[in-house]
Amino acid sequence: MRIVTAVAPVNIATIKYWGKRDDDLILPLNDSFSATLSLEDMCAKTTVMISPYLLENKFWLNGKEENMDNPRLSNCLKALKDRLNKENSEEVSSWKIHICSENNFPTAAGLASSAAGYACLVYALASLYQVDGDITAIARNGSGSACRSIFGGWVRWHKGSLEDGTDSIATQIFPTDHWPEIRVLVLVVNDSRKKYSSTLGMKQTVMTSELLKHRTKFVVPDRIEKIIDAVHKKDFQSFAKLTMKDSNQFHAVCCDTYPPCFYMNDVSHAIIDMVHVYNEFKGQLKIAYTFDAGPNACLFIQESDLSEVLSLIRYVFPSNLNANEYYRGIALDKDLFSKDLSLPTGITQYGLNTLRYIIHTKIGDGPRLLQDAKEHLLDSNGLPKNC
Amino acid sequence: MRIVTAVAPVNIATIKYWGKRDDDLILPLNDSFSATLSLEDMCAKTTVMISPYLLENKFWLNGKEENMDNPRLSNCLKALKDRLNKENSEEVSSWKIHICSENNFPTAAGLASSAAGYACLVYALASLYQVDGDITAIARNGSGSACRSIFGGWVRWHKGSLEDGTDSIATQIFPTDHWPEIRVLVLVVNDSRKKYSSTLGMKQTVMTSELLKHRTKFVVPDRIEKIIDAVHKKDFQSFAKLTMKDSNQFHAVCCDTYPPCFYMNDVSHAIIDMVHVYNEFKGQLKIAYTFDAGPNACLFIQESDLSEVLSLIRYVFPSNLNANEYYRGIALDKDLFSKDLSLPTGITQYGLNTLRYIIHTKIGDGPRLLQDAKEHLLDSNGLPKNC
Repeated sequence: MRIVTAVAPVNIATIKYWGKRDDDLILPLNDSFSATLSLEDMCAKTTVMISPYLLENKFWLNGKEENMDNPRLSNCLKALKDRLNKENSEEVSSWKIHICSENNFPTAAGLASSAAGYACLVYALASLYQVDGDITAIARNGSGSACRSIFGGWVRWHKGSLEDGTDSIATQIFPTDHWPEIRVLVLVVNDSRKKYSSTLGMKQTVMTSELLKHRTKFVVPDRIEKIIDAVHKKDFQSFAKLTMKDSNQFHAVCCDTYPPCFYMNDVSHAIIDMVHVYNEFKGQLKIAYTFDAGPNACLFIQESDLSEVLSLIRYVFPSNLNANEYYRGIALDKDLFSKDLSLPTGITQYGLNTLRYIIHTKIGDGPRLLQDAKEHLLDSNGLPKNC
Repeated sequence: MRIVTAVAPVNIATIKYWGKRDDDLILPLNDSFSATLSLEDMCAKTTVMISPYLLENKFWLNGKEENMDNPRLSNCLKALKDRLNKENSEEVSSWKIHICSENNFPTAAGLASSAAGYACLVYALASLYQVDGDITAIARNGSGSACRSIFGGWVRWHKGSLEDGTDSIATQIFPTDHWPEIRVLVLVVNDSRKKYSSTLGMKQTVMTSELLKHRTKFVVPDRIEKIIDAVHKKDFQSFAKLTMKDSNQFHAVCCDTYPPCFYMNDVSHAIIDMVHVYNEFKGQLKIAYTFDAGPNACLFIQESDLSEVLSLIRYVFPSNLNANEYYRGIALDKDLFSKDLSLPTGITQYGLNTLRYIIHTKIGDGPRLLQDAKEHLLDSNGLPKNC
């Protein structure tokens, strides 16, 4: 019997992935670039167990048993088994598997839980089956952007050019501690709309948007080089501008899709407006926003601006929550809000609880194994401990 | 003394104008195509008066005196005076002018009032100064899309290629009665946001959007030919799809602008969603939306679908207004709502008064003169009658 438990982080793309050139192999039309967020504040956790005594494959996600026939899941499993060490492959390969997975961050955060989830699964399985070498291409088969959650720090997903997709892998460009001054604020927005699946959305964009072709071919290659250079130099001005422009262009091609897909709502637009008014007021870029396939904002700031930016947000988006409910993630110093905030003239203030809450986090490491047996999500019989 | 009063219509672009190649001459980056709406339901009205007894130039807009130094206004005036008949030019040209202008449609409708306004002014002035020949290039100098309001029916604004802009004119492609089955519904939405000027917005797009270049060069020329063909054949399916795709692409390049400009809001998105769900349900395109630089929708439908579409809208966007306040424009038959409406399953219903009201109109004629002296907005002393 073997059992392994791992945790894996969320990643936020600053140059966005949107559109596949191969739907089955999950090969993207362009490179993307992301920051991996700290495991301390948000992560996926997965326990995998194999044993000759298990009778069938089973899979639990967030406490609910799910079907193992999911082709993305079975593709990942098969790809890892194919790389099993020849010596023990036959025996171990025939053992049944139990998988138990959960996200320790609210789904409401609208962050790509499938990216952290598949990165975690593939990382845990690679340890379980003792598979060495690149596993990002396998994680990619689960959920495209999962490949970027295999590393900490600043990560590039190369689109690759081979037909079989083996060179469409992620690599770490800068380590976790490269730019320690960066802080990330996830602004969680109320949204009652039906969620438009990003898999379907990007398929529709590829089929119908004439602007996407121009973006993937002419715009993104240049932006990738420029943002790597900006992060290399810790040039917040360039980094911020590229990040905001690429978020907007991603939503532009969604709008150019037929039928169009709108992921941002009026509150997202209000956040964008707040950021531009504030940056203009400060005479430099102090905040950069980026939005994935949902209304929640992810803001990049520098640690020295944390106090003022949090005060700004609380002014623009007042809340009746206690500070410890409104601000989650990395704990804030008590004296953080003591300073006077000078506000841009004419800045708009929105209604109470327009924002739900804020997660305060930073750049973090890639997946890791949890050695303590208490951490396993499955008991010795291979059943979920919390079910 | 000479006095002339004219009315001019609103036009709605189905292939959008967004971006100038020359800011002073108001020369566009691409051709655009529009439908002129009926003067009966919405129009601008202008009285112009010249006389040797007037002491100075004066201008009233919607009952308020405005500055005559406005360069767009003086450019139009100068361009028309330059074309005065040689015989009487010196005398007439030296007479002072009074101009009084008003829109008989609510500004809240968010329709391009400046287009109707400048078309009306230039049309009235051309009559006053007895100027023959093309006046669309002069109207263009007031407000780009005003040139399209000089004609009824279906109109193309040619971007032209001459540096002085003299070939950037509008022409009528199909007359008013070409496709009489078309009906237009203007859905007026509540919006409390600060209005982002379209002149500034398009300037910012030209400076910062990489996608705009692709749109103007590669997408629009093809769409112009295709939509003219669709209107020629009265092919509602092709017309509707092109109209919706071009509206979305215009908003996509606004989103790709830095900082981005968002003209649609959550209600606009809800209207778009309603249209696609309904079209899908009917198995064909029954409704086409288009949005200008504001949140209000302009829907194109065919007369035979009027009853069902109005019922659909009233279901999705319930209102506590009386029918005659909620439905404006062309009067509706009493029995129009007697039929049962079959609704798409799972269609979303929004809160009361999410829509303000609806203007029901159709394709109409170009500007015309009002001969009855009672119609003049100025009295015999050249002062506004309502002030």
